[in-house]
Amino acid sequence: MDTPKRLSGVFAPVLTPFDEALDPDIHRLVRLCRWVADHGCGIVPFGTTSEGNSLSVAEKIALLEGLVEAGIDPNRMLPGTGCCAIPDSTVLTRKAVELGCAGVLMLPPFYYKRVSDDGLYAAYSEVIQRVGASALRIYLYHIPPLSQTPISVGLIERLVKDYGDTVVGIKDSSGQWTNTEAMLAAGWDDFRIFVGSEAFLLANLRGGGAGCISATANVNPGPIHHLYATWRQPGAHRQQQALDRVRRVFEQAELIPALKAIVAHYTGDPAWGAVRPPLVACRAAQRRSLVDALGLLGFELSGIA
Amino acid sequence: MDTPKRLSGVFAPVLTPFDEALDPDIHRLVRLCRWVADHGCGIVPFGTTSEGNSLSVAEKIALLEGLVEAGIDPNRMLPGTGCCAIPDSTVLTRKAVELGCAGVLMLPPFYYKRVSDDGLYAAYSEVIQRVGASALRIYLYHIPPLSQTPISVGLIERLVKDYGDTVVGIKDSSGQWTNTEAMLAAGWDDFRIFVGSEAFLLANLRGGGAGCISATANVNPGPIHHLYATWRQPGAHRQQQALDRVRRVFEQAELIPALKAIVAHYTGDPAWGAVRPPLVACRAAQRRSLVDALGLLGFELSGIA
Repeated sequence: MDTPKRLSGVFAPVLTPFDEALDPDIHRLVRLCRWVADHGCGIVPFGTTSEGNSLSVAEKIALLEGLVEAGIDPNRMLPGTGCCAIPDSTVLTRKAVELGCAGVLMLPPFYYKRVSDDGLYAAYSEVIQRVGASALRIYLYHIPPLSQTPISVGLIERLVKDYGDTVVGIKDSSGQWTNTEAMLAAGWDDFRIFVGSEAFLLANLRGGGAGCISATANVNPGPIHHLYATWRQPGAHRQQQALDRVRRVFEQAELIPALKAIVAHYTGDPAWGAVRPPLVACRAAQRRSLVDALGLLGFELSGIA
Repeated sequence: MDTPKRLSGVFAPVLTPFDEALDPDIHRLVRLCRWVADHGCGIVPFGTTSEGNSLSVAEKIALLEGLVEAGIDPNRMLPGTGCCAIPDSTVLTRKAVELGCAGVLMLPPFYYKRVSDDGLYAAYSEVIQRVGASALRIYLYHIPPLSQTPISVGLIERLVKDYGDTVVGIKDSSGQWTNTEAMLAAGWDDFRIFVGSEAFLLANLRGGGAGCISATANVNPGPIHHLYATWRQPGAHRQQQALDRVRRVFEQAELIPALKAIVAHYTGDPAWGAVRPPLVACRAAQRRSLVDALGLLGFELSGIA
């Protein structure tokens, strides 16, 4: 197995389509991943936007195998594998390594609250040792609004010190630019810092960050990737502003149902609208107002089938 | 299969012992459950105190089967079966029904935050329909400090209205007596309200509640059950005060590691001290101060092997 390269660029935490029985639909998922990849973006199955924690381990393994079999490039794939239970995180992470994935995006165990850095260090350490694969590359997942389990700079420091070849990056979904700045300032060797929203993409790249992993890359992958590819050129700031306008439309609604509603609209395939509880699908009126707001921005989502 | 009776009394969310590889140990678990049951308490495997969310579905199924095989009475068993993913909750709940468990204690899906009552209603409804068993009895699990996903009185109202034979009770671990009072005042027909701490046991019983499901019933089952059995008699208030003094000792420390440390101490079996990350085992100094504080109260934990 090749040694995975450290990642950079724009990644989409791909939406998980469900069929009428609310079971995951690999065929629609493959089509979305191809379209996202064709626009230059990498793939994060089982992120927050993917409703990853609403899927069982067996469902995630089947989908991951299905994606690789369908030709989605594992070198640009970063599946979410962090669960509450260490055996679950271990099985999923091992599968990702076996399939040649460039890395995994790993939530800390998120049921217990106010746990110590010692406990989180032990959780990551335990998974790393159980997987026991030199090809494993972990990108930590800092998303306190949902996990309520922050990954502190001190914890990263310890993990990088002890597992520098394995713990190679982070997704910062805190929504706090000051937090990203603190991590960028730490200067860990070749540590890849992704922001969790393209709203911070230009700032992150200017600060030495690696890119972004963003929900809206499901529907706006080309323009977000374009900013990544051309951020040193004149007009980058205007590109950032255009991305922000699209993002703000989605942020007015519940983000995940809104993204699925928009994919349903542009593909003409209403099945895309389905979410698993506890999320609730976007209502028709909300969907129309999203489509209208995006129309005013000249937004188009073309070529997705 | 018999129609399960609605539950009342004192239940212990039993600690999960781990071996040196941090795998669950059914033998020690059976011994603890027998001891707890011998003191009049029912058994809640896979509660918060059981580190239930740190166990995989397969581990939980194996343990549940092991407990029933070992003769622990399923009529007094209420396993925790609520997971983030509906297929996981479904599989576990179905297994509990198959094994004849009197009910299940069901967390709402707890990864997404600020979800709607519509979404939580749909989540419970989906599991009930997937399990599709008339013998299913669900006790909702309201524990906002950890789940960050409260179960409102309005949500209970809807579930009881549509699934009155299935959704038959709740554990209120809010720690807010006013919340328990509001549920008691709602007066749902034969709805069983358990408090999540014996600190509220007497108040709950006086208000028409069903009992308590409490972490400290792992180490203090006899006295807690005794208050339940004799709460109408003179001296109940003094009993309550004695329970409170013991509980406060554990609340000074991290509750789960402290309980395991005390079981380790009184059984003379240090293996009991192990916890899965992200929890951290109790340090020796902390354990000594717990033992000393309990000793001052004349606390004993005898007969547990």
